[in-house]
Amino acid sequence: MNKIKMLYEGKGKKLYSTEEKDILIAEFKDDLTAFNAEKKGSENGKGDLNCKISSFLFELLEKNDIKTHFIKQIDSKNILCKEVKIIPIEVVTRNVATGSLTKRLGILDGKVLPFPLVEFYYKDDALGDPLINDEHCKILGITENIQELEFLRSQARKINTILKKFFDDRNLRLIDFKLEFGKDAQGNIVLADEISPDSCRFWDKNTNEKLDKDRFRQDLGSVKLAYEEVLKRILS
Amino acid sequence: MNKIKMLYEGKGKKLYSTEEKDILIAEFKDDLTAFNAEKKGSENGKGDLNCKISSFLFELLEKNDIKTHFIKQIDSKNILCKEVKIIPIEVVTRNVATGSLTKRLGILDGKVLPFPLVEFYYKDDALGDPLINDEHCKILGITENIQELEFLRSQARKINTILKKFFDDRNLRLIDFKLEFGKDAQGNIVLADEISPDSCRFWDKNTNEKLDKDRFRQDLGSVKLAYEEVLKRILS
Ligand SMILES: Nc1ncnc2c1ncn2[C@@H]1O[C@H](COP(=O)(O)OP(=O)(O)O)[C@@H](O)[C@H]1O
Ligand SMILES: Nc1ncnc2c1ncn2[C@@H]1O[C@H](COP(=O)(O)OP(=O)(O)O)[C@@H](O)[C@H]1O
Ligand SMILES: [Mg+2]
Ligand SMILES: [Mg+2]
Repeated sequence: MNKIKMLYEGKGKKLYSTEEKDILIAEFKDDLTAFNAEKKGSENGKGDLNCKISSFLFELLEKNDIKTHFIKQIDSKNILCKEVKIIPIEVVTRNVATGSLTKRLGILDGKVLPFPLVEFYYKDDALGDPLINDEHCKILGITENIQELEFLRSQARKINTILKKFFDDRNLRLIDFKLEFGKDAQGNIVLADEISPDSCRFWDKNTNEKLDKDRFRQDLGSVKLAYEEVLKRILS
Repeated sequence: MNKIKMLYEGKGKKLYSTEEKDILIAEFKDDLTAFNAEKKGSENGKGDLNCKISSFLFELLEKNDIKTHFIKQIDSKNILCKEVKIIPIEVVTRNVATGSLTKRLGILDGKVLPFPLVEFYYKDDALGDPLINDEHCKILGITENIQELEFLRSQARKINTILKKFFDDRNLRLIDFKLEFGKDAQGNIVLADEISPDSCRFWDKNTNEKLDKDRFRQDLGSVKLAYEEVLKRILS
């Protein structure tokens, strides 16, 4: 399968059409952005790392009966995936309070939540991805069907259970993560986008050292080293 | 019944204990605040107007089988009410998009919503009353019981139906409003606080002139005149 035409360039990936209808190639970029792209950077090799990490985790989820857009990894920075119509919700699942949640609700950074919290944010860069509730989803025309939102929440919780266990076995705490879902040509809702240290927070189980994009957000240095460490532990 | 001790002074009211356990006097103040009390003002006679308007509307709701904290109006600026434990959620119901909603979600000001939107905001001045979802309510310890949240939403919708019709008959559009609920001594959830042009938005049906606290928020002038007009139409 070959890249025919670039359909979209986002902050972290480029999407290309292929010879096959409904099949895309997603190329992982080295670019890093944070705070709604106000902060920009780049890390040589980051695209390759996210591509490998995402591919591994999509395969892990597929083995655990989660339907995803993932077909296969083509080379170091490209994957083949089903084209979906992205549902413009960032589905965020949190096991531990950190980042915006602590500021928004006055919860202490690092507090283990009593249950995995699922939040919906409206995927709209111009609006800064605002938090929304189920009724907002209807009003925004994101869904006519409240059951779809229940499905997103239940998938997020299932994925959390699978990933949390997987990372825990590798001495990493899965703090929180952002998922995107889309509808495939048959109308099925499948997991899409990526699962990487750009979209997840990982803390070392022993030291609570951050091994994710917060190293970039907070200028902690060693960004690439951290992503390499995550890949190393995934493959271990 | 007499005021014994001031228990709390808020932005719009003072609460006093009385000789009777579980019975309070709420005194309506002339003070006006907006934008989380960053903007402050005062309007002579506003307390009296809100006291009369709230009393009338609480009675209207009681006649329509909505349980409230309201017992009776004592004099021009004081009401007698049941003491409740306030549930720290601002329950906002919107028929028309305006104010923060338009900025947050990019919806045009004045757009009639396809259904009455109910939102929960965490009542916490220090945090700026952030929007929350049902799971946040659990995590913040506001409720252990998701059914309570369903009850708040259904009460808000019922109250909206009653008030919207009432005001429509008086040539006023009920744009949106904020409610507070609390638990009485028996553990019943009842409507509390106030219902006034401080907590509701009213637009004239013919001209869309604003007849509520937005006149203060947006420096439109004639604040007191607007509140008087709302009272006049209520009594008409
Ligand atoms: N399988 C897919 N089909 C169609 N679009 C997808 C798929 N997977 C991810 N996308 C979309 O690809 C775009 C590019 O990704 P990314 O660079 O992360 O964009 P963004 O800047 O929006 O975060 C995003 O809009 C994402 O929602
Ligand atoms: N029946 C009641 N019992 C106890 N507290 C109440 C009752 N009704 C309203 N309150 C509370 O009274 C306080 C004073 O009201 P207000 O001046 O509007 O305060 P705020 O500055 O918090 O808006 C508020 O905290 C409100 O929640
Ligand atoms: Mg993205
Ligand atoms: Mg108040």
